[in-house]
Amino acid sequence: MAEMKVTPWEVTGDVDYDKLRRDFGLDSIDQPLLDRIRKHTGQLHFMLRRGIFFAHRDLGWILDEYEKGNKFYLYTGRGPSGNTTIGHLIPWMFAKWLQDKFNVEMWFQITDDEKFLFKDKLSAEETHDYALENALDLIALGFDKKKTKIFIDTDYAGKLYPQAIRVAKHITFSTAKAVFGFTNETNVGSIFFTSMQAVPAFLPSVLAKKNIPCLIPLGVDQDPHFRVARDVLPKLGYNKPAIMHCKFVPGLGPGGKMSASDPNSTIYTVDTPETVKAKVNRAFTGQQATMELQKKLGGNPDVCSVCQFYRFFFEPDDKKLENIFESERDGSMMAGEHKADLTKKINAFLAEHQKKREQARKELDKWLLKD
Amino acid sequence: MAEMKVTPWEVTGDVDYDKLRRDFGLDSIDQPLLDRIRKHTGQLHFMLRRGIFFAHRDLGWILDEYEKGNKFYLYTGRGPSGNTTIGHLIPWMFAKWLQDKFNVEMWFQITDDEKFLFKDKLSAEETHDYALENALDLIALGFDKKKTKIFIDTDYAGKLYPQAIRVAKHITFSTAKAVFGFTNETNVGSIFFTSMQAVPAFLPSVLAKKNIPCLIPLGVDQDPHFRVARDVLPKLGYNKPAIMHCKFVPGLGPGGKMSASDPNSTIYTVDTPETVKAKVNRAFTGQQATMELQKKLGGNPDVCSVCQFYRFFFEPDDKKLENIFESERDGSMMAGEHKADLTKKINAFLAEHQKKREQARKELDKWLLKD
Repeated sequence: MAEMKVTPWEVTGDVDYDKLRRDFGLDSIDQPLLDRIRKHTGQLHFMLRRGIFFAHRDLGWILDEYEKGNKFYLYTGRGPSGNTTIGHLIPWMFAKWLQDKFNVEMWFQITDDEKFLFKDKLSAEETHDYALENALDLIALGFDKKKTKIFIDTDYAGKLYPQAIRVAKHITFSTAKAVFGFTNETNVGSIFFTSMQAVPAFLPSVLAKKNIPCLIPLGVDQDPHFRVARDVLPKLGYNKPAIMHCKFVPGLGPGGKMSASDPNSTIYTVDTPETVKAKVNRAFTGQQATMELQKKLGGNPDVCSVCQFYRFFFEPDDKKLENIFESERDGSMMAGEHKADLTKKINAFLAEHQKKREQARKELDKWLLKD
Repeated sequence: MAEMKVTPWEVTGDVDYDKLRRDFGLDSIDQPLLDRIRKHTGQLHFMLRRGIFFAHRDLGWILDEYEKGNKFYLYTGRGPSGNTTIGHLIPWMFAKWLQDKFNVEMWFQITDDEKFLFKDKLSAEETHDYALENALDLIALGFDKKKTKIFIDTDYAGKLYPQAIRVAKHITFSTAKAVFGFTNETNVGSIFFTSMQAVPAFLPSVLAKKNIPCLIPLGVDQDPHFRVARDVLPKLGYNKPAIMHCKFVPGLGPGGKMSASDPNSTIYTVDTPETVKAKVNRAFTGQQATMELQKKLGGNPDVCSVCQFYRFFFEPDDKKLENIFESERDGSMMAGEHKADLTKKINAFLAEHQKKREQARKELDKWLLKD
């Protein structure tokens, strides 16, 4: 196995989620917790049933508060280094489900400053352009406009920076170095940045002049930011935010996270039907080398990127998913058919999504918070 | 001599300005340069005649551009860690003279973020309160409202932060450490801060969408910030700012800078006449231990804080200043009379200044730039 490395800016190697949970000190989302959630949501989202959201911090406390009538708000975000991928939509769709079921506000941060500071080749104009494009994808998912605040860091810095320095005063370079692996050659903006990402975890409390619990659904690679924020926020008089951690959707190649920077490993929300078809046709499956061997021995859905796309996104129905997995295992489904089916599913989703994206473009200005 | 240490946050030891100029790599404001300035200003400000502004970077270039019809703007500022002192007014008064003589804009930054980040005991509310109070002193000096922009960092972060990250991307922790003496225990906001102080050196160029030369009159302790900024700005397509460096007004005790944090060494603009009298009465003079010895041997105006207050601020007329110095040297002026005269001068200035300060309070909101 390639050695696992998971930071907010790099995920490499074979990700062992049990080890990651232990390394990061996360709690499991276990059956009693799932039962507790179900009491409020009626049924469980497939990402909970399937362990795609697999770990948490203080989720029990969020439910305690909710049950006492003290509503939380949701906070998640996006680092706009490129176009949105299917993988990015996963925690957002889950967040939308939480918004609907608990009837709560969602604060969505788009960190164009981060991507500008951490990516040598990206200009401030490019990261801001991607930020606007990425916002369209969020809106297209159908969030409740009255309860959803979207903001791009460089357009909302007047609100964010004065709070970020309150966080920054409590973070030494030593801490930032230990948590994020910075060196003496890291630029001073990158070193400061985690303070900006901490702000939405308490800004609604600042504005409301009372403590409001915060729940952050995120990709597990973002946890280090909030490990730091959870240390600092109580020193400023705010609650530690609770977190729900999501696994990475596998890329279309074997192993690893779907990466926005490897265009072949990933489906973008703006891909054409032809591009989707070509990418899926090249995808790694769990099947045998020949049709005959596949019919005889069957394949392995757990390492099959086509099966995993169904599991993470395109087949919410557990029974139908099991049928797909079984047809991979028992050798009855050939790779070509398998891929053609997925292509159809993805393209149907994207046709609809792209339509909503363009509708969102017209009203984008009304969604974005600005100074 | 106590070893000299001059950083933006600490000035200790006996300041040797020649050594400082060599260490920092500054040029002298020499006679040819003074003559060139005089061509435009008619006569020279006493702070130039007396070498209070003693060093520069690229001042010749600023005059070249001005003579070609390409006007510069002025930029200076204040770190609001307490009330304004007489010492703070010195570069501001000089900047006002430049504004009047060259008919140019002045951008004035009040870095409440800096003082909050660097001073453990100051809260964000306190530094913002001081910022407002300090702004009154600037306005009271009579700057041209149409040509003067005052902004407090946390109120103007929406404009500053998006530009600051462009600077920050070019500054590594190594550089910040070498220039400012940071350690691994420095907080990440302090490490980032110099990027915020760099912004007004090019923000007017960003807003005007063309390069406008920038001239920064400042206390020489602030030079390190602009050493860094001068490295970075050309990489962003902007000019290096020019700088004029000012000496520190001596404190009322022997040696050292007038320090806002040592209330007895300094006169605040809000001091009452009684307080001024008491402070000046305790001041260190260059006189002998007894009246008889003073009459016989005379004193040393160069180390006399009373004489130096006249030289830096309260006696712009060179002949009158020479008379004061001579009466100290020849033993004809006794310490008591000397101090009573200065007290009268200071209190006359403050009475007028405090009146203008309170007038400024009423219109403060109209002066401050906000996001």
